[in-house]
Amino acid sequence: MPTTEPIITLTSDFSLTDAYVAQMKAAILRGHPSGRLIDITHQIPRHDILCASIVLERAVAAFGPGTIHLTVVDPGVGSARRILIVQANGRKIVCPDNGLITWVWRRTPNMKAWELTWRPKTSSATFEGRDIMAPAAAKIAAGCPIEAIARPIGDPVLLPITPAKSLSEGGQIIHIDCFGNATTNIAQELLTNSKNRTVIVSRHRLGGIHDTYSDVLPGKPLALVGSNGMLEIAVREGSAQKVLKLRVGDKVVVR
Amino acid sequence: MPTTEPIITLTSDFSLTDAYVAQMKAAILRGHPSGRLIDITHQIPRHDILCASIVLERAVAAFGPGTIHLTVVDPGVGSARRILIVQANGRKIVCPDNGLITWVWRRTPNMKAWELTWRPKTSSATFEGRDIMAPAAAKIAAGCPIEAIARPIGDPVLLPITPAKSLSEGGQIIHIDCFGNATTNIAQELLTNSKNRTVIVSRHRLGGIHDTYSDVLPGKPLALVGSNGMLEIAVREGSAQKVLKLRVGDKVVVR
Amino acid sequence: MPTTEPIITLTSDFSLTDAYVAQMKAAILRGHPSGRLIDITHQIPRHDILCASIVLERAVAAFGPGTIHLTVVDPGVGSARRILIVQANGRKIVCPDNGLITWVWRRTPNMKAWELTWRPKTSSATFEGRDIMAPAAAKIAAGCPIEAIARPIGDPVLLPITPAKSLSEGGQIIHIDCFGNATTNIAQELLTNSKNRTVIVSRHRLGGIHDTYSDVLPGKPLALVGSNGMLEIAVREGSAQKVLKLRVGDKVVVR
Repeated sequence: MPTTEPIITLTSDFSLTDAYVAQMKAAILRGHPSGRLIDITHQIPRHDILCASIVLERAVAAFGPGTIHLTVVDPGVGSARRILIVQANGRKIVCPDNGLITWVWRRTPNMKAWELTWRPKTSSATFEGRDIMAPAAAKIAAGCPIEAIARPIGDPVLLPITPAKSLSEGGQIIHIDCFGNATTNIAQELLTNSKNRTVIVSRHRLGGIHDTYSDVLPGKPLALVGSNGMLEIAVREGSAQKVLKLRVGDKVVVR
Repeated sequence: MPTTEPIITLTSDFSLTDAYVAQMKAAILRGHPSGRLIDITHQIPRHDILCASIVLERAVAAFGPGTIHLTVVDPGVGSARRILIVQANGRKIVCPDNGLITWVWRRTPNMKAWELTWRPKTSSATFEGRDIMAPAAAKIAAGCPIEAIARPIGDPVLLPITPAKSLSEGGQIIHIDCFGNATTNIAQELLTNSKNRTVIVSRHRLGGIHDTYSDVLPGKPLALVGSNGMLEIAVREGSAQKVLKLRVGDKVVVR
Repeated sequence: MPTTEPIITLTSDFSLTDAYVAQMKAAILRGHPSGRLIDITHQIPRHDILCASIVLERAVAAFGPGTIHLTVVDPGVGSARRILIVQANGRKIVCPDNGLITWVWRRTPNMKAWELTWRPKTSSATFEGRDIMAPAAAKIAAGCPIEAIARPIGDPVLLPITPAKSLSEGGQIIHIDCFGNATTNIAQELLTNSKNRTVIVSRHRLGGIHDTYSDVLPGKPLALVGSNGMLEIAVREGSAQKVLKLRVGDKVVVR
């Protein structure tokens, strides 16, 4: 395999319990047999577009230019919702136009968006991830120009979350991971003078922004810059979600 | 990698919690180092041969000719049960002869079956998936003729489920997926005049056979043709299994 | 792809729910784009170093020489704990030096250990699996000599478990798998005259060491040699963990 063969990643809320993920992979490999497939996760909570949007941005940041990201969390499957193709720093994303692109769109400069206009001769109205989006991703992987299968648009559907613009404006929790670590929308670039800051979330006051979990005792909460570059609330060897009773959307104040 | 390198899929009830799946993959790659491995699922409920049989048929339908499907749900491991090799439309299946092949066998014309007679010099009596079936799949992937490792048979073990032959005969639920969608044994070819049909399942009457979930309001049940081409009972953005209290084996009437 | 391209396996306690595993894979593929990635499991119970140590040994035994095993269960991430590289029979292991290497170290002759001294220019203090260990594994896969990135050491951190030296000394349960089968530290080489042995565990007496599950009736407990070559306590088509109330650390006596 030439090392330039593009990687195609897959993200969905299909879980790994049935054949659905494999059916999408089969559809990609029928269109582009030498495709290199990498799963991001298929355990997005069902229909949780915000969660998928955050996870997608992390995947896009992790994989290099040329990677194609197929992301299918699609409660509106079979309806009139559009299918998006987005180009971001040389990466390409194929997903339903339902807000899934939000966090990539907010965090990446110079994005371009298209509506997929190509359709297969036949497709199931309940599994367009397999029948339309996977073959489209395969076409792009095989070198098909986006313009040949899509038309430019400027208005993808976006959820009402944005990166915090300043500390005085405050922030919020945008994602809670499998360990109970809570990611905020406050990027590390805003966190000057971090050792002297106080982070207030859900009526808890956390002193200082730390470097890593082992800066505090096991079971203790802390604020730190997480591995994705955003302010994060964690509990060492525990769950901040449970210990501090955090939820996505909770306000976060940094003083 | 030449694009003709066959894909080998894996399906089991091993879960992903231990090293068992990886041990099967290692055994395949020892026998055929350039094999391309795709997981279907390893979360078949433990020893649920019917569930595995339905999932296997979906995998066989999804992947092209030349694909080898290794499927291991094997409560009788180490006993005298046979190991099957089956050829279906150019696909090959390796699995224990315990009924796992049923749904592929019922849905595919011109099947051929063999009993695997090849055995390794040593093997564990508790993990023949790793020690016998995975190496056999690798041999087939490497080009070994089936006849060199197996003898033809005509009587694979089959479970007592069949596709519905007519609407008047009625059908049943054969599979419930991770979303709670219930697949029946009624193929779409039987569903003429679908808009005017009434589907009766578990004392619920569902009017019309719809195209997709968004044809009804969120939370509402509907009948539709699922992505695998069979009549399906679903609840939009919900679980038909929970809302309608459905179970595999429930009778389904279409009028 | 040349068939000599080394396999890189991944084991962690990250689960498959977020993008963390994919971020490690991206880091490996940035360093060595033609790497062949195989997941062992990412469902090690969080911070369970003993469990990861047993699973790692099974992975090392399964895959051939040249394989690189990246194993990240790392409660001390960001602290002063070392990062290990270990060579065992031609396999290489990259993991934190927190006891994870224990079971491989105890079961394999002629091990060599190094401390990874290479560090990237920047790295997150909370995800060294992605930022330090994955790139190190990629370097090794790409042919970088271990000596160029690490210094020899003789004292990796080891947990206080060892293979049983004799039957008279007795043994213990070291691992319980997803089916509730309990693996002991008693290797089959010690189990002479196995049919006439009695195995005593958690106040249950099991007569004889059997060949396979189907030697007893469904629901019945038995002792047997498991697929990893160790004495195992199981319940046919059931869970020995639940039925016999077993826990890791329980004493096992063989008479």
